[in-house]
Amino acid sequence: MQTLRVGLAQIDTTVGDLDGNASKIIDWIGRARDLGVDVVAFPELAVTGYPPEDLLLRRSFVEDNIAALDRIAAATKGIVAVVGFVDADEDIYNAAAVICDGKIAARYHKRFLPNYGVFDEDRYFQRGSVSPVYVIAGVDVGVNVCEDIWYPDGPTREQALAGAEVIININASPYHRGKGAQRETMVSTRASDNAVVVCYVNAVGGQDELVFDGHSMVCDERGTLVARGAQFREDLLVYDIDVEGVKQARLHDPRYRRERSAVVGGSPKMRVSNSPFGDTKPFVSPAMPPLLDPVAEVWEALVLGVRDYIGKTGFETVVISLSGGIDSSIVAAIAVDALGADHVVGVSMPSRFSSDGSKTDAQELAERLDIRFMTIPIEPAFEAMLGMLKPAFADTQFGTAEENLQARIRGNLLMSLSNKFGWMALTTGNKSEMATGYATLYGDMAGGFAVIKDVPKTLVWELCGYRNRVAGREIIPESVISKPPSAELRPDQLDTDSLPPYEVLDPIIEAYVEEDRTIDEIVGMGYDAALVERAVKMIDRNEYKRRQAAPGVKITPRAFGRDRRLPIANRYRPR
Amino acid sequence: MQTLRVGLAQIDTTVGDLDGNASKIIDWIGRARDLGVDVVAFPELAVTGYPPEDLLLRRSFVEDNIAALDRIAAATKGIVAVVGFVDADEDIYNAAAVICDGKIAARYHKRFLPNYGVFDEDRYFQRGSVSPVYVIAGVDVGVNVCEDIWYPDGPTREQALAGAEVIININASPYHRGKGAQRETMVSTRASDNAVVVCYVNAVGGQDELVFDGHSMVCDERGTLVARGAQFREDLLVYDIDVEGVKQARLHDPRYRRERSAVVGGSPKMRVSNSPFGDTKPFVSPAMPPLLDPVAEVWEALVLGVRDYIGKTGFETVVISLSGGIDSSIVAAIAVDALGADHVVGVSMPSRFSSDGSKTDAQELAERLDIRFMTIPIEPAFEAMLGMLKPAFADTQFGTAEENLQARIRGNLLMSLSNKFGWMALTTGNKSEMATGYATLYGDMAGGFAVIKDVPKTLVWELCGYRNRVAGREIIPESVISKPPSAELRPDQLDTDSLPPYEVLDPIIEAYVEEDRTIDEIVGMGYDAALVERAVKMIDRNEYKRRQAAPGVKITPRAFGRDRRLPIANRYRPR
Repeated sequence: MQTLRVGLAQIDTTVGDLDGNASKIIDWIGRARDLGVDVVAFPELAVTGYPPEDLLLRRSFVEDNIAALDRIAAATKGIVAVVGFVDADEDIYNAAAVICDGKIAARYHKRFLPNYGVFDEDRYFQRGSVSPVYVIAGVDVGVNVCEDIWYPDGPTREQALAGAEVIININASPYHRGKGAQRETMVSTRASDNAVVVCYVNAVGGQDELVFDGHSMVCDERGTLVARGAQFREDLLVYDIDVEGVKQARLHDPRYRRERSAVVGGSPKMRVSNSPFGDTKPFVSPAMPPLLDPVAEVWEALVLGVRDYIGKTGFETVVISLSGGIDSSIVAAIAVDALGADHVVGVSMPSRFSSDGSKTDAQELAERLDIRFMTIPIEPAFEAMLGMLKPAFADTQFGTAEENLQARIRGNLLMSLSNKFGWMALTTGNKSEMATGYATLYGDMAGGFAVIKDVPKTLVWELCGYRNRVAGREIIPESVISKPPSAELRPDQLDTDSLPPYEVLDPIIEAYVEEDRTIDEIVGMGYDAALVERAVKMIDRNEYKRRQAAPGVKITPRAFGRDRRLPIANRYRPR
Repeated sequence: MQTLRVGLAQIDTTVGDLDGNASKIIDWIGRARDLGVDVVAFPELAVTGYPPEDLLLRRSFVEDNIAALDRIAAATKGIVAVVGFVDADEDIYNAAAVICDGKIAARYHKRFLPNYGVFDEDRYFQRGSVSPVYVIAGVDVGVNVCEDIWYPDGPTREQALAGAEVIININASPYHRGKGAQRETMVSTRASDNAVVVCYVNAVGGQDELVFDGHSMVCDERGTLVARGAQFREDLLVYDIDVEGVKQARLHDPRYRRERSAVVGGSPKMRVSNSPFGDTKPFVSPAMPPLLDPVAEVWEALVLGVRDYIGKTGFETVVISLSGGIDSSIVAAIAVDALGADHVVGVSMPSRFSSDGSKTDAQELAERLDIRFMTIPIEPAFEAMLGMLKPAFADTQFGTAEENLQARIRGNLLMSLSNKFGWMALTTGNKSEMATGYATLYGDMAGGFAVIKDVPKTLVWELCGYRNRVAGREIIPESVISKPPSAELRPDQLDTDSLPPYEVLDPIIEAYVEEDRTIDEIVGMGYDAALVERAVKMIDRNEYKRRQAAPGVKITPRAFGRDRRLPIANRYRPR
C-alpha cells in the first residue's frame, strides 16, 4: 500500500531572528526524520517570522533570509522539507522552498496575497503565477501558501485536477475568536471538493498584536478531519496518508473525473524524489486533541501573546498597577500563567478616592497569585501637583483634568519602576474602554503591552470565571468580580456614570467596530437610539487615544491597531 | 482658433466632511464658471477627503459620498467639472466623475493603485480597466487619477495615442522635500513623450501625518511648464490651452504619428459636450509663481500641517512646553504662524537642573512671539515623587528613571492644562530624537501633534535661521540657536553625552531610515563603524516608543508613522 508520512511542524519563530529560526527548523527537521516522516512542512515565512513588515524593504534582510535557507537546505538529509521563506529575483515573493536531500528542488510563489485587515502583502510581494505539482517520495503533491487555499478556484484546485493527491498548505494565520472552527470547515470543503488530502500547517506564537494559534490539521479526500495539532503551543503533527486510497476514491468520483478531463494544459509537474527515504513503517495513530472551549481559547491566546511579546522583546519581568478592580486582576493572572509568579510585580497606588475594599482586594489578589507586591500611595504627588497648578486652575472646578492627573501620577510611578528595574509595564484597559476612550492617555494607558485591549468587559468577567473554575479556587477574589466597575478618580464614581452598562455597550461596539453596522441597524437590534449615537460618537472621537496606545493581543475579528485604520482628523458623522 | 479653458481647483477638503466638501466644490465650480472656464478639475477623492482609510469599509460612507456627488452634479450648470469621489458597484473605485450640465456624464476608475509608503489603496479599491477619451467642449480629453500618470505606458499614453489632446490628472499627492521638482520633471516628460497637454491638479491641506502641497501645473505638448499653482494654499489655476497648436504639433511629430498608427483598438471615445458653454474670451495670462526655496517649503508644510490638524480636529489653541531649547522654540514659532499668537500658550517648567539661561530664553521667546506664558517649576512634584519612590528605589543610583520622572511630571502638567482648558498639547521632539529614542515616552512625547517629528535636528537649525531671516529680526533668540543641545535632566547633561554630533547622526539616520542602506554602505560614506552600529541599534530598539508617538507632519521621503512599518518584537541585526 502506497502511503506518505507527513509531518506538520507548527513552530514558534521570531521575526528577524534568521539564525535562531533556521536552527529551530533544522532541529525540527531532525525530529521529523527520527519519526520516519517523508515530508515535513513548516509555517509560512518560517525563516523570517511573520509578518516581517518593512524589514522586507531592506535588501540585506532578504539576502540574509536566503543564506539562512541555504543553511537549512544543507542540513536537510534523508527527508523532504517544505519551508516558508522570502524568495527574490528582480522582485520578492512569499515563497515555499521544497528541499530534498541538501538541495532546494523547487520554489513555490504564493499566488493570492492578502491585503486587508492586518495584512499588507501587496505592499511587499509580487504574486506567483504557476501552481506546479511536485513528485515527493513518489507521490504527487501540491504545495501552496496560506491565502491560496481560501480560494475555491485557486492553486489547490489546479493542483488536484493536475493529479496531486496531497496538498501541503503552509500558514501564518493569526488567531481570532472562532477562526479555528472556520478554518476546519474551509479545509474540509477544499479537500472534499477536490478529492484531495489537505495538510494544513500553521505557525504558533505571539508577534506584536498577533497570536498564531497552531491548530494544524489534515483533512482526507472525503473532507473528514483525520488529525489535529495542538492549539497555542508548538507541536509536530504526524500523519500517514493512504495515497492508494485517494486514487481509489477518485476512480469512483465521477465529478472529479469529469472536471479533470476538462483541464487543458494545467500545472507543470516536477520530480523532487521518487521514493520515500525510510523503510516501510507501521502506521502512527493520528493526534486528535479536542478543541478548547471558546473562553479557554481566548485565555490561551492572551497567555501566549504576553509570553512571546515579553520574551521576544528581551524582557523577563512585568509590573502591573493593581487597582483592586477586575481588569488589572485578570491581567495579573494572565501574566502569572505566561511568565510565572516570580516574574510579575503588582503595585497598588491608592489615592484619596480609593475605597478600602480596593486596597485590600489588590493585596488579596497579589497574595493569591503569590506575586511580589508593593504599595505607593499617590497623595503626596497629587497634593504637590494640585498646588503647582493652583494659579493656573484658579476659579475652576474639580473635573477631568484632576481625575486624569491621578491616573498620570500612577503612570509615572509605574514607568519609574519600569525604567529603574527593567520591568515592562503592562496596561490593563479592556476593549470597551479602548473603544469609548474611557482611559487616561499617559495614565492607565502607559505601558509596553496592552494585554486585554481587544477583550470586551463582558468577556473579562467570563475569563475570570473560567480561570477560577480551572484553578478550582478563587484566584481572583469574588469581591473583585462582583463589585460595580469604577475608576475611583472622584468620590463615589462609577463607570455607569459615563458609560452605558457593559451588557449593552459591548454588543454595540461589536456591531459598530467589528461589523461596520450603521446606527440604524444597531438600533434595529433593539438598542436605544440616543444611547447608540452617544456610544458611536465616543468611539469615533477617541481615535487619537488609540493611536498612542500600546499594542495588545488581537482576539476578535477586528482589533484596534493595524487591523482598523481610521483617520484622526475625521468629520464623518455616521448614520 | 480652438482653445480650451481649464481650471485647476486645488482645494483643502476635510476627510469625512462630505457635506462641507461638497459645498466647497460647488462654490469653486461657481468661481470657475465666473472666470469662463470650460472644464474645472478638483483633486483626487475631493468629495471624501484623502485618505479616508477604513471609512471606506463602511457602506453608508460610500453611499453618502455618492449622495454628495449627486448634489454637486445638480449644481453644475454651464461648465464641465471633473471631481474625485468613490464610485461603487459590487466593488469600490477611486474614481473621477465627469459632470456636465447637471449630469454625471462619465466615471473614470483609477487604474494604478499605490500600495507602498503611506498608501494602502489595494486595501480598499478595485482597479479600473479602461482609459476612455472624453469629448469635452469639442476637445478630446483624457482623465486619469494620480498614480496613473507615473507610468509611462499607463492611461496617459493610451489616451494620447487614441487622440486626446489634453490630459486632466487629479491628485492627492502628499508632500515631501523635493517632491515638487520631481513631479514637474515627470509631468513634463509625460507631456512631451505623448505630445499632449497635461493638466495636473493636486490637493492642498494637512490630514493627520500628511500635507498636500497644491502646486498644480500645466505642461504643454512640448513638455514646457506653462502654468503653476500656489504651494501650500488653495488656488484656482486657469489656463487657456491652444488645442489647434497641439494638433499642428502632432502633424509634425513623426514619433507620435508612427506610434499612433500602431495602436489597435485603443480607448473608447465618449461625447460629454460638443462646444464650450461660454463665448470666445480673451486669453488669460497664466500664473507662474516662483517655487519656494527648499527650507521655506518645509516651513510652509509644517505651518499648514499644524493649522489643519488643529482646525480639523476641532481645536483652537495649543499649549507648548518651552524649555528654552531650539526645538520647543521652533515649534512655538510654527504654531504662531499657523494659528496666530493668541492661540498659542507657552509653559516653562524648570527643574533643579534647569540653567538660568534656559528659563530666561523661554520667557524671552514667548515675549518675542507675543504669546501667553506661564511658569510652573516642577520641584515640588519631583521631590514628592522621589520621596514616594524612596523605599522602592533604596540602594539605587540616580539614573534614567529619575531623569524620565522629570519629563513625565512635565508631560502630566502639560496634559492637565490641555484637559482643563481644551488646548491641544504640541510635542517638540525632532526626527533625530524620534529615531534614536532620545525622548521620554509619556514625558516630552506627551501631546496630540508632534510638529517636527520628521525634521532632523540639523534642519531645525536651518529653519530657525530661515524664520529669523524672513522676520528681519531674531524671533528665535540667537542664544537659543547657538547653545549646545541638552535635555537638562541631570547636572551638566549634553545631548552629545548619549548621541553622536547631529551633523554626523542626521546623515546616518537618512541613509538607514529613509534609504534602507546597509551598515557597510553607511560606513563607506565615511562614518566610523562603531558609531554607525550604535546609531542603528538605537534606531532599531526604539520602535516601541515611536509606536506610541503622536502623529506629525511628513516632510521627508520616509517618515516615522504609517510610512515606515516595522515590528516591535524584531531580532534582526542588520549588517
